[in-house]
Amino acid sequence: MESSHTMNQVEDGHKLLADGGERVEQLLAESIDWSRLPDHLAEAAQYGVLGGGKRLRPILVLTCCSAVSGREVDAAAAATALELVHCFSLVHDDLPALDDDELRRGRPTLHVHSGEPMAILAGDLMLAMAFGVIATGPCPPNVRVSLVEELATGTSDMVAGQVYDTIGGLPVDISPLDQVRLVHRNKTGALIRTACRMGGLCGGASPEAMAALTQYGEAMGLMFQIVDDLLDITQSADHVGKATGKDAALGKRTYPAVLAESACQAEVDRLRDKATTAAKKLGDGGYPLQCLAEVMAVRTR
Amino acid sequence: MESSHTMNQVEDGHKLLADGGERVEQLLAESIDWSRLPDHLAEAAQYGVLGGGKRLRPILVLTCCSAVSGREVDAAAAATALELVHCFSLVHDDLPALDDDELRRGRPTLHVHSGEPMAILAGDLMLAMAFGVIATGPCPPNVRVSLVEELATGTSDMVAGQVYDTIGGLPVDISPLDQVRLVHRNKTGALIRTACRMGGLCGGASPEAMAALTQYGEAMGLMFQIVDDLLDITQSADHVGKATGKDAALGKRTYPAVLAESACQAEVDRLRDKATTAAKKLGDGGYPLQCLAEVMAVRTR
Repeated sequence: MESSHTMNQVEDGHKLLADGGERVEQLLAESIDWSRLPDHLAEAAQYGVLGGGKRLRPILVLTCCSAVSGREVDAAAAATALELVHCFSLVHDDLPALDDDELRRGRPTLHVHSGEPMAILAGDLMLAMAFGVIATGPCPPNVRVSLVEELATGTSDMVAGQVYDTIGGLPVDISPLDQVRLVHRNKTGALIRTACRMGGLCGGASPEAMAALTQYGEAMGLMFQIVDDLLDITQSADHVGKATGKDAALGKRTYPAVLAESACQAEVDRLRDKATTAAKKLGDGGYPLQCLAEVMAVRTR
Repeated sequence: MESSHTMNQVEDGHKLLADGGERVEQLLAESIDWSRLPDHLAEAAQYGVLGGGKRLRPILVLTCCSAVSGREVDAAAAATALELVHCFSLVHDDLPALDDDELRRGRPTLHVHSGEPMAILAGDLMLAMAFGVIATGPCPPNVRVSLVEELATGTSDMVAGQVYDTIGGLPVDISPLDQVRLVHRNKTGALIRTACRMGGLCGGASPEAMAALTQYGEAMGLMFQIVDDLLDITQSADHVGKATGKDAALGKRTYPAVLAESACQAEVDRLRDKATTAAKKLGDGGYPLQCLAEVMAVRTR
């Protein structure tokens, strides 16, 4: 019973991701005003934003909003803004001075496509535009202000994680596992937590619901990156659409670098259960969030 | 009479800049929460933000707010945010892939000080933090939302100007002078116009006062960059605290590249008068803005 129940949730999760991904592509294409930009800057930014990807973060914004009975229209701007920030972070992380990646989502990275100067500037543009999209969104002004604050904090934390990941400087008085957790909670976890909280804000979540969404987002964020770490050592670049096997070569702080693969998998299971428990606190509205936790725990790309 | 009157205004303008600069240093040191950041990221961002400079943009925010009878406390967050964006733009513009400058405000640029990865990431952080500072500021939520929108638009326009300046792609169906104007209005003018409009928003400016502040900001922004162009060909790097003589060497679009020096000077005078006329529309409250226009027209660094 339990296993077929979970299989249904994985199936429903796949459908949520597929439908949500299409909806987000539409939002990104429709709700950003590229018209006041020089053509080549708009082209570069659109290349960075419209290149596909899982769209997990904006899907989480939309799903968390509806989990607390909010309407999609209230969360659309926040979802768009969050994906702009995520895409900006990928564009800058891929730069030669940082991760120096040439492949992303199965295509050349933006600095390969448009040159390094344009990749830096288009990334900057995407970050600034994200806040403009929220400011002009449909939520009441006090909610928009909270969304801006939330997004600024999430972005700052993400940058801190990227600094730890690419430059180092981690505290030396904590264990290697705690060091990895610190990197992951910031580098990846911050924006996923932010996505869930922004969805809650858009949907007018109660303090209790917001606490559940925060727990859910924190568990999902850490789990997402552990799964990513595992895919980096088990999958080909062709399969996941970006370079793999790089983490170990660069001596990066990852879960498989400090824990056996079976222990990493156990941590994924633990975090999936934690996310599921948090989602259940939201009642029936939390079911789609459970499905997303199940499917993200077993993803293979 | 006219000349001694103007000399008084230049003197008052110098005092406004000196006092305002001190006030802004204080605001930047006090009103940004660096505590949640890794030490080396906080150090790099502070190096980029606290390194002195004229602080014209935040001074304009404060002065435009008080010009429409607003209180300084209402404009402090907006002034801080705008200077964060300006400093972020300098950090990124100085990068090897862009202007490749090693000297700024008489000190090594941030990528020389902290390395290129940190300069990219600290710049990103400064931009995100700017919006967080506004979101948590003291103005009513609807004003904060307008400030975020204004800052996002100004930043996008500035990035567009930087693209034109360093990558090119200017429209070819306009004259060389119009091309330079397009670069300058975006690269430098956008944030100066934004500073004035944000000050007006903080001070609760009427639509008429906002229109005057916008005219003032547009004239000041273009004038500022023409004076910068002139200093680049007439002053030493030691004197202005950054590399000079580079524009011509790089074939950049500048005023002296398309107009004789005397014609550039005439354009400065015309824009100063335009700014002064706009400031006068604000009555007595506009006097400090007149003084700033006079002093910025004759600055030598």
